[in-house]
Amino acid sequence: MTEPLRIGMVGYAFMGAAHSHAWRTAPRFFDLPLAPEMTALAGRDADRLAAAAAKLGWDSTETDWRRLIERDDIDLVDICVPGNLHAEIAIAALEAGKHVLCEKPLANSVEEAEAMTAAAEAAKANGALAMCGFSYRRTPALSLAKRLVDSGALGEIRHVRAQYLQDWLTDENAPLTWRLDKAKSGSGSLGDIGAHIIDAAQWISGSDVTGVSAILETFVKERPVGGDFVGLGGHGGADGPKGPVTVDDAAVFTARFANNAVGVFEATRFALGRKNAMRVEVNGSKASLAFDFEDMNSLWFYDAADEPNAGFRKIQATEPEHPYTGNWWPVGHGLGYEHGFTHQVVDLVNAIGAGEQPTPSFADALQVQRVLAAVEASAADESRWTAV
Amino acid sequence: MTEPLRIGMVGYAFMGAAHSHAWRTAPRFFDLPLAPEMTALAGRDADRLAAAAAKLGWDSTETDWRRLIERDDIDLVDICVPGNLHAEIAIAALEAGKHVLCEKPLANSVEEAEAMTAAAEAAKANGALAMCGFSYRRTPALSLAKRLVDSGALGEIRHVRAQYLQDWLTDENAPLTWRLDKAKSGSGSLGDIGAHIIDAAQWISGSDVTGVSAILETFVKERPVGGDFVGLGGHGGADGPKGPVTVDDAAVFTARFANNAVGVFEATRFALGRKNAMRVEVNGSKASLAFDFEDMNSLWFYDAADEPNAGFRKIQATEPEHPYTGNWWPVGHGLGYEHGFTHQVVDLVNAIGAGEQPTPSFADALQVQRVLAAVEASAADESRWTAV
Amino acid sequence: MTEPLRIGMVGYAFMGAAHSHAWRTAPRFFDLPLAPEMTALAGRDADRLAAAAAKLGWDSTETDWRRLIERDDIDLVDICVPGNLHAEIAIAALEAGKHVLCEKPLANSVEEAEAMTAAAEAAKANGALAMCGFSYRRTPALSLAKRLVDSGALGEIRHVRAQYLQDWLTDENAPLTWRLDKAKSGSGSLGDIGAHIIDAAQWISGSDVTGVSAILETFVKERPVGGDFVGLGGHGGADGPKGPVTVDDAAVFTARFANNAVGVFEATRFALGRKNAMRVEVNGSKASLAFDFEDMNSLWFYDAADEPNAGFRKIQATEPEHPYTGNWWPVGHGLGYEHGFTHQVVDLVNAIGAGEQPTPSFADALQVQRVLAAVEASAADESRWTAV
Amino acid sequence: MTEPLRIGMVGYAFMGAAHSHAWRTAPRFFDLPLAPEMTALAGRDADRLAAAAAKLGWDSTETDWRRLIERDDIDLVDICVPGNLHAEIAIAALEAGKHVLCEKPLANSVEEAEAMTAAAEAAKANGALAMCGFSYRRTPALSLAKRLVDSGALGEIRHVRAQYLQDWLTDENAPLTWRLDKAKSGSGSLGDIGAHIIDAAQWISGSDVTGVSAILETFVKERPVGGDFVGLGGHGGADGPKGPVTVDDAAVFTARFANNAVGVFEATRFALGRKNAMRVEVNGSKASLAFDFEDMNSLWFYDAADEPNAGFRKIQATEPEHPYTGNWWPVGHGLGYEHGFTHQVVDLVNAIGAGEQPTPSFADALQVQRVLAAVEASAADESRWTAV
Repeated sequence: MTEPLRIGMVGYAFMGAAHSHAWRTAPRFFDLPLAPEMTALAGRDADRLAAAAAKLGWDSTETDWRRLIERDDIDLVDICVPGNLHAEIAIAALEAGKHVLCEKPLANSVEEAEAMTAAAEAAKANGALAMCGFSYRRTPALSLAKRLVDSGALGEIRHVRAQYLQDWLTDENAPLTWRLDKAKSGSGSLGDIGAHIIDAAQWISGSDVTGVSAILETFVKERPVGGDFVGLGGHGGADGPKGPVTVDDAAVFTARFANNAVGVFEATRFALGRKNAMRVEVNGSKASLAFDFEDMNSLWFYDAADEPNAGFRKIQATEPEHPYTGNWWPVGHGLGYEHGFTHQVVDLVNAIGAGEQPTPSFADALQVQRVLAAVEASAADESRWTAV
Repeated sequence: MTEPLRIGMVGYAFMGAAHSHAWRTAPRFFDLPLAPEMTALAGRDADRLAAAAAKLGWDSTETDWRRLIERDDIDLVDICVPGNLHAEIAIAALEAGKHVLCEKPLANSVEEAEAMTAAAEAAKANGALAMCGFSYRRTPALSLAKRLVDSGALGEIRHVRAQYLQDWLTDENAPLTWRLDKAKSGSGSLGDIGAHIIDAAQWISGSDVTGVSAILETFVKERPVGGDFVGLGGHGGADGPKGPVTVDDAAVFTARFANNAVGVFEATRFALGRKNAMRVEVNGSKASLAFDFEDMNSLWFYDAADEPNAGFRKIQATEPEHPYTGNWWPVGHGLGYEHGFTHQVVDLVNAIGAGEQPTPSFADALQVQRVLAAVEASAADESRWTAV
Repeated sequence: MTEPLRIGMVGYAFMGAAHSHAWRTAPRFFDLPLAPEMTALAGRDADRLAAAAAKLGWDSTETDWRRLIERDDIDLVDICVPGNLHAEIAIAALEAGKHVLCEKPLANSVEEAEAMTAAAEAAKANGALAMCGFSYRRTPALSLAKRLVDSGALGEIRHVRAQYLQDWLTDENAPLTWRLDKAKSGSGSLGDIGAHIIDAAQWISGSDVTGVSAILETFVKERPVGGDFVGLGGHGGADGPKGPVTVDDAAVFTARFANNAVGVFEATRFALGRKNAMRVEVNGSKASLAFDFEDMNSLWFYDAADEPNAGFRKIQATEPEHPYTGNWWPVGHGLGYEHGFTHQVVDLVNAIGAGEQPTPSFADALQVQRVLAAVEASAADESRWTAV
Repeated sequence: MTEPLRIGMVGYAFMGAAHSHAWRTAPRFFDLPLAPEMTALAGRDADRLAAAAAKLGWDSTETDWRRLIERDDIDLVDICVPGNLHAEIAIAALEAGKHVLCEKPLANSVEEAEAMTAAAEAAKANGALAMCGFSYRRTPALSLAKRLVDSGALGEIRHVRAQYLQDWLTDENAPLTWRLDKAKSGSGSLGDIGAHIIDAAQWISGSDVTGVSAILETFVKERPVGGDFVGLGGHGGADGPKGPVTVDDAAVFTARFANNAVGVFEATRFALGRKNAMRVEVNGSKASLAFDFEDMNSLWFYDAADEPNAGFRKIQATEPEHPYTGNWWPVGHGLGYEHGFTHQVVDLVNAIGAGEQPTPSFADALQVQRVLAAVEASAADESRWTAV
């Protein structure tokens, strides 16, 4: 009989729904060493919490996350709240001996991220493991990209170009939500989506960013407050009161990597027509690869060995031999956004079962945080070159 | 408190896994009038059945599907076995007053399909509803295609071209499975994947096929028998015994529709490099649309009103206004293959809750069966034009 | 000093402009064994002829093509007039000892094509060579496709699917031009664009079509007559007099090839949104290839040897090693439609210089004509299977 | 009778072939106010010059460009030599009262470009007109992009992202040509291909770059010298002597525009698999557009007015209503790389005929030169923000 892994989750919005689905689905398609149980859900508003727990399928609720951490029947705390709360919850959970899965970006500052990383190192000695939720790593096509680079197929890496293009703030009357409030979100497009491409670029290329020169821009300085808001988009009231946008709408920066590659990054919510274009391209001396999340089941791969009849191949990353996909459907039957979260659970539970450090660790996420901080520092000082 | 809808499922292979996931997931993302319960799973081999029930999450098992139908605690029978068993199970279930969801193609012959349709009509009078599982209808991009045609956006329809291209039999040593045995599967590519594009073409265009001229071809006449086989592909033993392939490898046919459109269809498992290219294109007098399941989250749409700056638009069918997608993730965060099954459950449970006929009905599926039969008759008589 | 090759061209509309450009351009980019001279242009209307000769760069004019053939200073007759005039001109020219380049389709009937082929055979013995202008063969990406098949890269060929989709007749008020008059054009989409894909399919696959089952359809039965008409499109007067369309708007047919491949063909001028989608896909046992003229500089190639990381490669057919492209621009600097005509001249002049038969020969074009005739016969007899 | 416009061209390599073709072809497809005559070709090596003149179709030759300028029978000097010679020739020609077409980049330094611009201003008063050859402006799809922006269709512009990705230096043994010698070329990827995207970005967006932060990188520091070299690519001798690469292999920079848009630029010859990916994307508040020269006949256009069924439309920029294309072939019959040069000649001759300033003027090209200089200054000073 498989031992249970009892989960307590904090937060139940967009990320909460994705994580719930992952905990529920992972054991149905993968053989896991521990059996996840959706034990408790925490949130502040008792009524909305109860409704969310029923809808998402959690066995119990707590209106104070501290209570969740005190419970003996919780083995792992899954943190799905805005970034300003990550450090306090994660550190408390780790100190209480719980495993922790924390959404990205790890924190709203390098200082918080350092404290969290220290807590994770200490907890690891006691058998509690921590992981940061850069779920895009578990998109099969991106995992395949990583595998190809690790195999040496690309040779020496010269270029990394990464973009995360969305357009849901193009409308000047889109409402002022917590994501546009620096106190809660830490930053705008930079931390929300820029963090994803920084992590992906460093992870796939196997090399850290060492310095950056950046621009941050806020195109729309104030937006309507109040009103009902669901999801990322929506329209506020154009004639009502407005409040200041305190985060960046767009972040663009050049970068250098430890392996001497040159990078260019762009994260924006104003690329009209690009809905979720999380893109990474890597050019090596022997091969290149390119990915766009808007066509998430494909990896484009160019192998110079095929010349003169070479060309970017559209690999459908759904073969049995590809990462994760052998447990799902036949080739060509695509997976979706939430599968990344399911695979994240799979890898996390396997790591816990084996007593090994899951990746990305808090230390890996701290490195991303340092790049975010360098970008902000550079942008604040006229794009001055800033070491990470 | 929502009333339960107690499900009994027969079969637990590829389709069984997809259906199980759908029953489990639908109520977590959609508000349903009845609460699906995964009550019982039926299969012949007790050991494998028990393992499947545990893995897929069913509460009990039955080694005889007849016993499942006799149970009072089953409201709906979900049929996921090869086509030769559909008629007997479906008719028995309907006569026992159960709702029925039956995988496609509805049957292995028009005669069986007619009997099933008659049973469905009779059962409907008693409140038992029947649906056939052409799940691709519930791919959001294809549902959007249907919505656009129904809105009149395309004008008069002139052309329908539909392809279902796979390549998993290209290898001459791929093994002889039940899908290549006419006694079990009824036909080869024609019924397995051709049925999908016939249904999609008729449904989206809103018009039935009235006649066909067809070729059926079996490129590889015999294949290795025995050996372990998982999924659709795999390699048999090239040196071992072989058995005859008794179904078509490929089906191509021209067609006419009741609305005077001209159609061309192609279904094959030998289109090397095409993994799951289920494609439909419709050309009207005012607009055109095109879909390819290998890029399942997009619908291509050409509107002549945009001329001279017109062009096929790549609509990411993930907007809140698009079919089904508002209940999932933000725009651009793609869905996968299994979502069609989840949406199928949503529509079926909604129809049952409302006491209305779900679609596609058995009568709709019978029309597909008649096209399949006409294709076989035409191919058997030198491509003679054959009315449906 | 290179000997001259003195050209006399008959006709100066769309094809005349393309051919003139080719004669003028070929020697500037390729080393030719003979130097083409644009000696004389023939047409019926003296004024328009003079203007065309000045614009297109011809040294003299003749208002009767017979006079052109009589001239001693003409070595080659280039026929760019509607199909009903091909046979008479070509046969007379060949009998006069001139080389002949004749636009496609070769003729308006098999009988004419047979007579032309006989004349070409007879003339060849006297050193006069004949070629039919299936210029798409000289698109570099399609030439590369042919080269790959000839190399054995595809293995055994199972499927050929070919489409030629245009949309310029979608508007019901597009005018009644000579292309819609069977007496002049012979047929509609079938001979005009269907001939191209038949030739391409047979040429690339290296195998002839042996039988067909076809539908021909005329969606719009009558159209406005008169009015100024330039090019392929245009709008007639919706309120003026109309005349009957006597040719097909669309042709769809299934086919078998001598090599046992199964084919499906579709030619139409009603595929709204498809402007010049001349497409060929070939699936073999070892590799597949696909081409679409709307992206004419690319060839898509799938090689099973790349599995499991295989995918259709987008080969930019502009490498120095690719057919024709080494004489033009660096890789990735695309060529256009007219380059096919220039390459046709290159190959023709090289063949004449070497005293060898250029391809496609009249015999090759006669085989296309026989397929066209079989398609018409099948369509006229309820899609009956018709041997070629 | 149309007056002649007598051309003297300096240089006969890659650009010389392209320009010759343009002069020869333009009057055959467009009605021009003056008739270009290919009067004289200048170059230093008499034998190679004579061969080039014969091949490219020039009536006479001069081994000293100064002699060309002295000739009375030359109306326009077309400069197709490396950048270090541009200023001297262009200024001398303008002072001699000749019109000038000068290849890009205008010069190897801002100082030279300023002197050339001053000379052009002075000459204009005397009726001699000067133009810089940013030929990509005349690609129909890019001209259409400009037209759409000018029409206000995009609204307020927020983002410009421009890339020019090639891969012909990926091989470390590609030879050391003049393009890698700073004394001749001025810079590497920056001036050669970066200049194109700077010009395109400023021209299409209608706004100048006001500041930049840049990285320049030379991945391969030395390369084989000597050996036969043709075209852009080729392989040198890996074992022979090597010389230093004195220019950049790649240039990446962020930018701000006068209209407050944020820009990101990347030019490289090391993007393995990207052959000639000259790309521009512009995101506005109402619409977006995207272009890639590897698919040069298409413009992608997203119009927010189409929401929720919006998507990037693939406009085939080959309609009669589109820039330049009405003089060529029917819709969907693509144009190629050299058509940009032909259109450049058309626009230049039309401007000369009308006595109006052609664009891009030397002043426009000087602005590009200033951006190039700012990029170099920023890169040399640790990516410091540098005003243009």
